[in-house]
Amino acid sequence: MRVVVALGGNALQRRGEAMTAQNQRANVQVAAKQLAAVTRLGHNLVMCHGNGPQVGLLGLQNDAYARHVDGTVTPYPLDVLGAQTEGMIGYMIEQELGNELPFEVPLATILTQTEVDAADPAFQNPTKFVGPVYSKEEADQLAAEHGWTVKADGDYFRRVVPSPKPKRIFEMRPIKWMIEKGAVVIAAGGGGIPTMYQGDKLVGVEAVIDKDLASALLAREVDADYFVIATDVKTVFIGWGTPDAKAIKRAHPDEMDKLGFAAGSMGPKVEAACEFARLTGKRAVIGALEDIEAIVKGEAGTVISTEVAGIEWY
Amino acid sequence: MRVVVALGGNALQRRGEAMTAQNQRANVQVAAKQLAAVTRLGHNLVMCHGNGPQVGLLGLQNDAYARHVDGTVTPYPLDVLGAQTEGMIGYMIEQELGNELPFEVPLATILTQTEVDAADPAFQNPTKFVGPVYSKEEADQLAAEHGWTVKADGDYFRRVVPSPKPKRIFEMRPIKWMIEKGAVVIAAGGGGIPTMYQGDKLVGVEAVIDKDLASALLAREVDADYFVIATDVKTVFIGWGTPDAKAIKRAHPDEMDKLGFAAGSMGPKVEAACEFARLTGKRAVIGALEDIEAIVKGEAGTVISTEVAGIEWY
Repeated sequence: MRVVVALGGNALQRRGEAMTAQNQRANVQVAAKQLAAVTRLGHNLVMCHGNGPQVGLLGLQNDAYARHVDGTVTPYPLDVLGAQTEGMIGYMIEQELGNELPFEVPLATILTQTEVDAADPAFQNPTKFVGPVYSKEEADQLAAEHGWTVKADGDYFRRVVPSPKPKRIFEMRPIKWMIEKGAVVIAAGGGGIPTMYQGDKLVGVEAVIDKDLASALLAREVDADYFVIATDVKTVFIGWGTPDAKAIKRAHPDEMDKLGFAAGSMGPKVEAACEFARLTGKRAVIGALEDIEAIVKGEAGTVISTEVAGIEWY
Repeated sequence: MRVVVALGGNALQRRGEAMTAQNQRANVQVAAKQLAAVTRLGHNLVMCHGNGPQVGLLGLQNDAYARHVDGTVTPYPLDVLGAQTEGMIGYMIEQELGNELPFEVPLATILTQTEVDAADPAFQNPTKFVGPVYSKEEADQLAAEHGWTVKADGDYFRRVVPSPKPKRIFEMRPIKWMIEKGAVVIAAGGGGIPTMYQGDKLVGVEAVIDKDLASALLAREVDADYFVIATDVKTVFIGWGTPDAKAIKRAHPDEMDKLGFAAGSMGPKVEAACEFARLTGKRAVIGALEDIEAIVKGEAGTVISTEVAGIEWY
């Protein structure tokens, strides 16, 4: 089977932990031990990963250097920072997966650019907070200087950027060739570097792409048999955090739509899983990284598939 | 023909220019226009690139954030920063080369880890300055804290790291598969991420790898017909900067050895070119990026080959 696993950036850099390379590596090591099980079961593994905390830190480091050391080095744009995170996170995952797998298994981390549509409504309504917090005055000044949109985030102000839908992954041919050769592939990091055409030139875009939607697109393009969104909860729940919480075992995408998940947390994962299930007829699963082996065996997580009639609960 | 081109990190971020993303991209656009000529001549192009200025800036940004904003986020190690530069520079080169080439030409940037030898004598004598300048007191304190070696650099002190020789590039199979498919490949950025085995685990190393030596290794491994080191001078000279400067047209590697080039500037390039020429019997060329088309046609640069008897001058 061909299995695409999407792993959250928060699984690699956990909230509340110092954002050091050591902590990130320790988390990657844990993830790699779990992910290696997919390959040991004989499946082709394609890994996608988020980059929210990591791209945030790079933005803060760029900002600190420009403010405190050398103002001529203005912070790098989000497409370039995203490319940096593909290198960093891809490296750690590739190295640690390599440490878990036999030396003969080839691994390849492919830099990935994702095309977005200039007409995407997200560009009219930027919603994703990025970078440091500012006072109102600072935020207004930066907005005027750089053409940023800024919004209140608690007591402070932050830059917001659009999160347009992924339309196309440019490196699909290299990614497919690597899979055909039996390589473990790491691709579409951070949802891919956001790009669009200006005339006949491809350019970077100051945006972020949802990694679950980009992973679902990648999973469709590589004809994945199984699309797994690995997160920190064991299943999708309704009534999460209440005494009446119920865990979903299997559901038709139409049933998931009816439940209406919040845009903030589970919404994009459910949307990505439903889209994959509908367009391919194959199974998407949302579950815990620690359960990945059981998930791939069909024994854990929330399975979303058009083959399921209605909804089943755990 | 299969052509490997090694491009200096300084060609992408020029000395004296503000180290902004905009300047880097402008330089990449110029380089991409020139490099596209290699593909248009019908050759397979494999690009390697340096990362000296870029990894230096990331180190400074890490340092600024740790000093001025959040001391718990200690600066990331050099292997991780090197991985970040592979993402960033690979992205810019891939995107701008893609803008010069027909859409049908596949491009693939492959994250690359290079193995070095723990017994390499470079580890006993670190020589490469990295990161910011410190006072003597600061430098001594950091050396004690982190186990760094620090050395005087003018009036200040800086960290020095080893520059061990590249032994092996782990991603050779993916790189070869991509070339066989006709892709333009970008690999071994910054000489590859420095790694070594500790027991049976591959780990990152706080070192820098000479990109010309790593590119020469890659060129041998992919059976390159032509290995080009693209720099900012038109040929190798003797008596550079004197009225008697003489430009070398073609030379046997043994003749280059006799001339004895300085370790600082042209030395590693000449060493890498001679090694490739000796081990493969194929031609290595050192010349200017702007002459790349003429170089690949055999009409410019300094050709180093065992087929040349003695030395010829321009």
